[in-house]
Amino acid sequence: MARRDRDPSPVVPKAAAARLSLYLRFLESLREHGVPTTSSQKLAAGVGVTAAQVRKDLGYFGQFGLPGIGYRIDHLVDELRRILGTDRTWNVALVGIGNLGSALAEYRGFERQGFRFVALFDRDPAIVGRAFGSLAVDSIESVEPVVRVRGVELGIIAVPAPAAQEVADLLVAAGIRGIYNFAPAVLQLPPQVAYVSIDLAVELEQLSFSVTQQRPT
Amino acid sequence: MARRDRDPSPVVPKAAAARLSLYLRFLESLREHGVPTTSSQKLAAGVGVTAAQVRKDLGYFGQFGLPGIGYRIDHLVDELRRILGTDRTWNVALVGIGNLGSALAEYRGFERQGFRFVALFDRDPAIVGRAFGSLAVDSIESVEPVVRVRGVELGIIAVPAPAAQEVADLLVAAGIRGIYNFAPAVLQLPPQVAYVSIDLAVELEQLSFSVTQQRPT
Repeated sequence: MARRDRDPSPVVPKAAAARLSLYLRFLESLREHGVPTTSSQKLAAGVGVTAAQVRKDLGYFGQFGLPGIGYRIDHLVDELRRILGTDRTWNVALVGIGNLGSALAEYRGFERQGFRFVALFDRDPAIVGRAFGSLAVDSIESVEPVVRVRGVELGIIAVPAPAAQEVADLLVAAGIRGIYNFAPAVLQLPPQVAYVSIDLAVELEQLSFSVTQQRPT
Repeated sequence: MARRDRDPSPVVPKAAAARLSLYLRFLESLREHGVPTTSSQKLAAGVGVTAAQVRKDLGYFGQFGLPGIGYRIDHLVDELRRILGTDRTWNVALVGIGNLGSALAEYRGFERQGFRFVALFDRDPAIVGRAFGSLAVDSIESVEPVVRVRGVELGIIAVPAPAAQEVADLLVAAGIRGIYNFAPAVLQLPPQVAYVSIDLAVELEQLSFSVTQQRPT
């Protein structure tokens, strides 16, 4: 599969965890518009699922609704952030500062969710030393000390596929707790390391597959 | 869910379609190394599934193995590209040339798979006219004529969430056949338009969820 994500926990289905992110986005947009409370019906409509699904998904983590009021948006936003781990800042290292890596290094969407790049690595001496904001690219050789000193917890891999496993091994050896892999490669990781994998071109290929199968050319 | 992809066809499971992309990547890397043939066992090992799964997935589309030989890699690569629709070039429009959009416009991984940007759009007059390679950013107002004249078939949406549905409507009205959505929004699309959706920060949030649930902080 294009995404080979481990189940985040033995009890919560992966799809439910993914929906929590969508609920959070929708609640944040309601809050920006000054809305104080909502209902499972409105939340469901905003995200494109049923109200029963909303109640079931939230039910894995507690009882958040109030009779006659529904959900207090401030409270539910806080709770969802706590559950998703985005009530805090994560120190992130990015390995592979090619085309995609450079784009990711400059992408502001991560920081908004609390993911902060504290280290960038590449193996190419022509790229090592290049600055992105206040951060300079370090040599891949220094992954272990840099990860330890800067307290890196999550690693993003944006290297070519043949180098991905070696980079993953370096990150794991340095004590990283989760890997977000953009390389089109299947990584072997110890069970305690969380893993999400994505290939942008594969996703686009799935789109061309859908179009092709719908109306063969 | 972070990805709300429609089933590409009534008979082929979405996960099987996604694995075809992985088989193709692995076969291409074997071919680069001069390997002429492979087996479902080797293909399975390379991708991290069982040999039975490989045979079942390929079986949806035909009989590709030869007794005593296995799969001829050249042939299977051609067949998978035909099935996935990447045996041809797709004309792609990208809407939203902010941080992420600029990164996508410069990402070479799409073109390698046959996805060619032929149009870039933004609503910001400060961005309209900016050049990416030989392509200049057009105004969002000109989506319909540009899409028609340049024969755009697939659209990538990289605008902020509140603008995503409006952009999708414009693309659909212009006759686009598939949409790849990076905005954290649920899009309402007619059934004949293929759809793949991805939110990079949501994926990273799923990683922090996994880490958080594994070892509560």
